[in-house]
Amino acid sequence: MAEKRPLTGFKPSQERLWHDINDLSEFRDKDAPGWTRQVFTDPFRRSRQWLAATMSAAGLDAEVDAACNVVGVLPGTDPSLPALVTGSHTDTVRGGGRFDGIIGVLGAIEAVRLLQEAGIRLRHSLRVVDFAGEEANDFGISCVGSRALSGNLSAEHLELKDPTGRTLADALRDAGGDPATAIQLAWKPEEVARFVELHIEQGPVLEASGTAIGVVTGIAGIHRMTAVFNGRGDHAGTTPMHMRRDAACAAAEAILAVEDTVSGDQVATTGRITVEPGASNVVPARAEMLSEFRSPDAEWLRANRAVVNDKLRAIAERRGMEVDIEWLMGEEPVVCAPELVETIEQVVGDLGLSQRRMPSGAGHDAVMMAELAPVGMIFVPSRDGRSHVEEEWTDVEDIATGVRVLAETLVRLDSTL
Amino acid sequence: MAEKRPLTGFKPSQERLWHDINDLSEFRDKDAPGWTRQVFTDPFRRSRQWLAATMSAAGLDAEVDAACNVVGVLPGTDPSLPALVTGSHTDTVRGGGRFDGIIGVLGAIEAVRLLQEAGIRLRHSLRVVDFAGEEANDFGISCVGSRALSGNLSAEHLELKDPTGRTLADALRDAGGDPATAIQLAWKPEEVARFVELHIEQGPVLEASGTAIGVVTGIAGIHRMTAVFNGRGDHAGTTPMHMRRDAACAAAEAILAVEDTVSGDQVATTGRITVEPGASNVVPARAEMLSEFRSPDAEWLRANRAVVNDKLRAIAERRGMEVDIEWLMGEEPVVCAPELVETIEQVVGDLGLSQRRMPSGAGHDAVMMAELAPVGMIFVPSRDGRSHVEEEWTDVEDIATGVRVLAETLVRLDSTL
Repeated sequence: MAEKRPLTGFKPSQERLWHDINDLSEFRDKDAPGWTRQVFTDPFRRSRQWLAATMSAAGLDAEVDAACNVVGVLPGTDPSLPALVTGSHTDTVRGGGRFDGIIGVLGAIEAVRLLQEAGIRLRHSLRVVDFAGEEANDFGISCVGSRALSGNLSAEHLELKDPTGRTLADALRDAGGDPATAIQLAWKPEEVARFVELHIEQGPVLEASGTAIGVVTGIAGIHRMTAVFNGRGDHAGTTPMHMRRDAACAAAEAILAVEDTVSGDQVATTGRITVEPGASNVVPARAEMLSEFRSPDAEWLRANRAVVNDKLRAIAERRGMEVDIEWLMGEEPVVCAPELVETIEQVVGDLGLSQRRMPSGAGHDAVMMAELAPVGMIFVPSRDGRSHVEEEWTDVEDIATGVRVLAETLVRLDSTL
Repeated sequence: MAEKRPLTGFKPSQERLWHDINDLSEFRDKDAPGWTRQVFTDPFRRSRQWLAATMSAAGLDAEVDAACNVVGVLPGTDPSLPALVTGSHTDTVRGGGRFDGIIGVLGAIEAVRLLQEAGIRLRHSLRVVDFAGEEANDFGISCVGSRALSGNLSAEHLELKDPTGRTLADALRDAGGDPATAIQLAWKPEEVARFVELHIEQGPVLEASGTAIGVVTGIAGIHRMTAVFNGRGDHAGTTPMHMRRDAACAAAEAILAVEDTVSGDQVATTGRITVEPGASNVVPARAEMLSEFRSPDAEWLRANRAVVNDKLRAIAERRGMEVDIEWLMGEEPVVCAPELVETIEQVVGDLGLSQRRMPSGAGHDAVMMAELAPVGMIFVPSRDGRSHVEEEWTDVEDIATGVRVLAETLVRLDSTL
């Protein structure tokens, strides 16, 4: 292991960053709202070439792979060392913005420019990746590109169909990919030293607390649940309150119970509730709710299921009805490597920037990359916490600050691993 | 005033009652579920003739009037006295049963038979009415026939249209009525001494408490409200709990607050709630609820509006959002005449039957007749409180008990007014 390197003093160019953000934003679906560039669409396909060219211009050996990822490589001085990997995604949700994912790719390219300009040659090779299709799509699968590179894209996935009947394989092929090769792209763990992802927070915490950098401790797991309360649809005029089995009142208690289960970093949300028959003069006979719980703590998520089950069953019992609770496919949390969290914190501290540790409540490509190597994430503030909307915004000055942290972190990792 | 008459000892025939219920139930829409005989339909039109014939056979001078009411008159011995009026309705909701309204008409006809068989001639004339179209219909108006007889059917009502564009006037004409005459049918208050209606409870109270007769103290008014909570649709993963404006949680509190406003005879129901955008991963931005409050106490209904407004606004304020509350067209309660309530209670007591005072949570033709004369209602038990469904049931023995009370009450009123 080499000696820890002091700060390099990188000064990312806000002008170049803003220029790249604007150029990339031109690849969008003009018929959709906001800055839409959904995976496998024509604007997405065309943006591949622009990204590869931009990477090449920065000095990377760039190519579009069979899964539509754009991968740029900066060879290291010691070919025996595994690669440092950074990047994110540039596809958007429909009606999305110009920052989510995007700054993690364009910021990585800017970091490469800074390295080149400073004449710094890393010992490890550096891979910059624009992962294809991180956002949810019509095939019901997210993180398509990072799944492929981490060995999590299967032949079964390729057969997934969108509502029009088109398969994921067809979509990949139409976008210039090669499905058969895509499921054999997996990198080996021994190829990858660390993965670091720069991303916007997509939440309000950094802005509200006036903090420059969020150092991500983990990516929350998500456990989802549906609960159906089966009451009785009595006449709302003639049935005294004490003789009712009102499914809407039971669900109302359950919504508040769900809200009440969480503390600290955990969040709980009941995003959907439907009540039947839905007439003003009939006591609701049936109420269905869809709730989700997010936490970076896998153990808590598991234990919370029993807590929620008990609370909802107690509500149902007190109100004389049945409740059917179903836990849907969950996503397990990912812990960011503590040594990587500490490295990033040291860099941020050395740079004299404000920072806070925080979990990520949203999913990221880092979840997939964690299967190959220790991962870390760097967050910059989102205005008013808005994301996945046209108004999504991060000041270019804050993006440049994030790029400084990313570039210095890569140099420090290179010197200490 | 004449002297209070002792019990007459009427013994209603369960066989005749059951026979009539079965005969009438044959007039139904065979393509609809249950025992459907909706107003203005062909089965309804045909049932008019059967009812007029059945009234005639019992000794009444019967006719179908211009509003499709069937009215039978039993002349009294003193033509200077106003009439005693009894009856209910025989139209049903779609998928309805064989008892709601029906036993108040067939029971009144049986009461006439009992008077005739006992050779009792009343001083007051007696009018037995099958009011047309008490149930809600596609024209958005209930109690069509009792509106006409109480002077509450207007030319504007006749222009109301169903979803196919047909007017109420057309529907009346097709069913054998005469719209122009229907709006001039109004009886004068001085023609009517009292109105008494026998009806099934449509609720579970009498059966659950093992009570034979409910003596109705009033018919609940209904105040309806919509409330819209306008929160903020944040990312359900990245927005900490304390920074949310969750419209679903606010509505959940409001549903429980609505439930909590009532006591005693009052009921409150939130029959409908919708949440937007309705995705598991978005904090609900908007929640709309439809609630109703019923009470026989007009003053309470008025005062309760302010209580509900305050509670919902406090919830919204605490959760950092706005709430828009709108009170919709209300229906005011009708108080049953205290002296009539007492007369019915005395009769029930003299007959040695169990009884309880209770409000009616559902609307009835008596609401309209209250504009002409003091009204009273007699309830008999509904099995499991079910009504407006195929399984609606009241034992014929219980119906016969109701007819005893009705017949003895009419005789007692005749003797004391």
